[in-house]
Amino acid sequence: MTTSSFPVDPVTLSQDLLRCCSVTPADDGAQALIAGMLEKMGFEIFSLPFGPEDAPTPNLFARIGSGSPSLCFAGHTDVVPPGEGWSHAPFSAEISDGLLFGRGIADMKGGVACFIAAVARILQERPLKGSVSLLITGDEEGPGHFGTRPVIEWLSQRNELPDFCLVGEPTNPAVLGETIKIGRRGSMNAEIVVTGVQGHVAYPHLADNPVHRLLALLAELTNRTLDTGTEWFAASSLQVTSVDVGNAATNVIPGTASARLNIRFNDLHTGAVLSDWLREVTARHAPGAEVKIAISGEAFLTEPGTAVQHLSAAITAVTGREPCLDTGGGTSDARFISRYCPVAEFGLVGATMHKRDEHVEVSTLEDLTQIYMTFMENFGL
Amino acid sequence: MTTSSFPVDPVTLSQDLLRCCSVTPADDGAQALIAGMLEKMGFEIFSLPFGPEDAPTPNLFARIGSGSPSLCFAGHTDVVPPGEGWSHAPFSAEISDGLLFGRGIADMKGGVACFIAAVARILQERPLKGSVSLLITGDEEGPGHFGTRPVIEWLSQRNELPDFCLVGEPTNPAVLGETIKIGRRGSMNAEIVVTGVQGHVAYPHLADNPVHRLLALLAELTNRTLDTGTEWFAASSLQVTSVDVGNAATNVIPGTASARLNIRFNDLHTGAVLSDWLREVTARHAPGAEVKIAISGEAFLTEPGTAVQHLSAAITAVTGREPCLDTGGGTSDARFISRYCPVAEFGLVGATMHKRDEHVEVSTLEDLTQIYMTFMENFGL
Repeated sequence: MTTSSFPVDPVTLSQDLLRCCSVTPADDGAQALIAGMLEKMGFEIFSLPFGPEDAPTPNLFARIGSGSPSLCFAGHTDVVPPGEGWSHAPFSAEISDGLLFGRGIADMKGGVACFIAAVARILQERPLKGSVSLLITGDEEGPGHFGTRPVIEWLSQRNELPDFCLVGEPTNPAVLGETIKIGRRGSMNAEIVVTGVQGHVAYPHLADNPVHRLLALLAELTNRTLDTGTEWFAASSLQVTSVDVGNAATNVIPGTASARLNIRFNDLHTGAVLSDWLREVTARHAPGAEVKIAISGEAFLTEPGTAVQHLSAAITAVTGREPCLDTGGGTSDARFISRYCPVAEFGLVGATMHKRDEHVEVSTLEDLTQIYMTFMENFGL
Repeated sequence: MTTSSFPVDPVTLSQDLLRCCSVTPADDGAQALIAGMLEKMGFEIFSLPFGPEDAPTPNLFARIGSGSPSLCFAGHTDVVPPGEGWSHAPFSAEISDGLLFGRGIADMKGGVACFIAAVARILQERPLKGSVSLLITGDEEGPGHFGTRPVIEWLSQRNELPDFCLVGEPTNPAVLGETIKIGRRGSMNAEIVVTGVQGHVAYPHLADNPVHRLLALLAELTNRTLDTGTEWFAASSLQVTSVDVGNAATNVIPGTASARLNIRFNDLHTGAVLSDWLREVTARHAPGAEVKIAISGEAFLTEPGTAVQHLSAAITAVTGREPCLDTGGGTSDARFISRYCPVAEFGLVGATMHKRDEHVEVSTLEDLTQIYMTFMENFGL
């Protein structure tokens, strides 16, 4: 085996991946493309489909080397639908004025390509000192039930969890090097429906105004300061997003009243404890009220340690910027990984992710490849 | 002039009035019918149209006698629309199984007829000792701007206010003799619209959640005990009748939130003071919020004195029942009169008022005539 065919150019590799029309849950050859390259580079390949037998989620785990330090790069090959109105066809990977266009270039085929290119370049020079693996799923943009979650569980059961996991999501709002994500807030939605007894406003003693019960419980919920934030997290926040009665009659006490709220919570809370609190307060003010809760994700945090310091140093070395360590924004598959091992996220600029004409500056692909290479060297690989 | 043509039969007189199709604001000859009879009985007649010149509200003031004691009977000849589905045509005044059917028989052409019959019977026997007047409007069921209100003001300006005013509204819920109204609670409606700054629930510091401001002000409003009632009034009551946001997105802090509320208040409060309170609380929690207030009527009370005692005694003498003195229910023109002189309300049974097949028992017309006669005698007329 020679190293001449190693995929050392992140731009070409990104373009190859972009041309796979892998709109979630489709794969269109994206994972086979990666598996083929990694196999040539000497990786051991594990194809790990999970989910329904007739339509399993494609997942790929690949590893090279053994022992410590062990680093896992996690990413996904599926993309969100392109929508209409692109100036460059979303799956043709066109370069124009220094910009590479394509659905998923930022989120996150570009990140995957840069990491593979970084490993390929190191392997051209020397063997790795520890082990490097890639966990690539085809269901990050979909429900996510059969993607990263069962794969990391599979690794855990085999006692093969890495020392550290780097997720290649586009963490930078505008410029490469701005932001490393070291955690995310949790999020939950609740809907509360209070049923009372309808009546005439002139005879309130014959009615049971559900609006008043709802107001009392919402007042108690909103009056609580959940916390004042932590070193790494902003304060948790409960926001009542809607209250609806829809009673047009001015002389009628309505029969039902409903409210919806969202809680963004840091790692001082869990969805379960917050759910218990919502139900307890509701039951006290409005016995029998209906409370529907959906927990979108728990809060998680990787306390910044050596690995994050190495990543930060690599970013500064390549871009001259000092990345901030952030826990804001939405969810990613890092929430599944965080239950098993330390995880941080760093990738391309996400300004156009999920939008029409998704693109990145071509030069940032080379820069990110350099960052990943430098990080791996700092990490001791 | 003989007294043989005096309208001493309340049933015939009620039927004559019912056949006038005086759906507010129409009159259809109802007031001319009354004026003609009263003129024959020796009353001085004042036709007092108020309002727009092209469509004035017909009002009738008629007086007989002079000096004290002076009693005014107040009533109206307009009725609410009949609607559909009557078993007896609403303006044909049919009697069936001892019941007289017709739109307005309870509310309140029957009351007007009984009072006229009562005066006619006394005048057949003897002259009156003081003075008796009738204030009949054609706009009680409508907006009421140009009815009782300007007529009582006109009397006030002429220094001709009566010692006591009796309103012939159907005060009895089910049986003649149950209830005298000596006051009414006030009623006001308010709509509060809070405008905030829309935003994403993940970034509450960039938004200003109008729902939270609205919840805080409504909590303060609903937590106040306005009063615990008085000797004659139930406790005042504030009821939030609707809260509406209509935000379907779970991750969005909405831009506006609105609430509507009604206050039924006793004579410890005024609409003006309550309005100031609503505005002050709102402004403190939600500066710039819009507060729209409509005061439907102020609370009023005629502390039970000699006149009410005379009325109560007359009711007991005729029906054997001890009427309760009540301040509940909706509004009537008594709210205008109460600003100028003591007023109480007593009339027929109101169970079918404003409904299909409005009717009264024929026998109650004779009973009410007897009650009015006895009351006038007790009153010293």
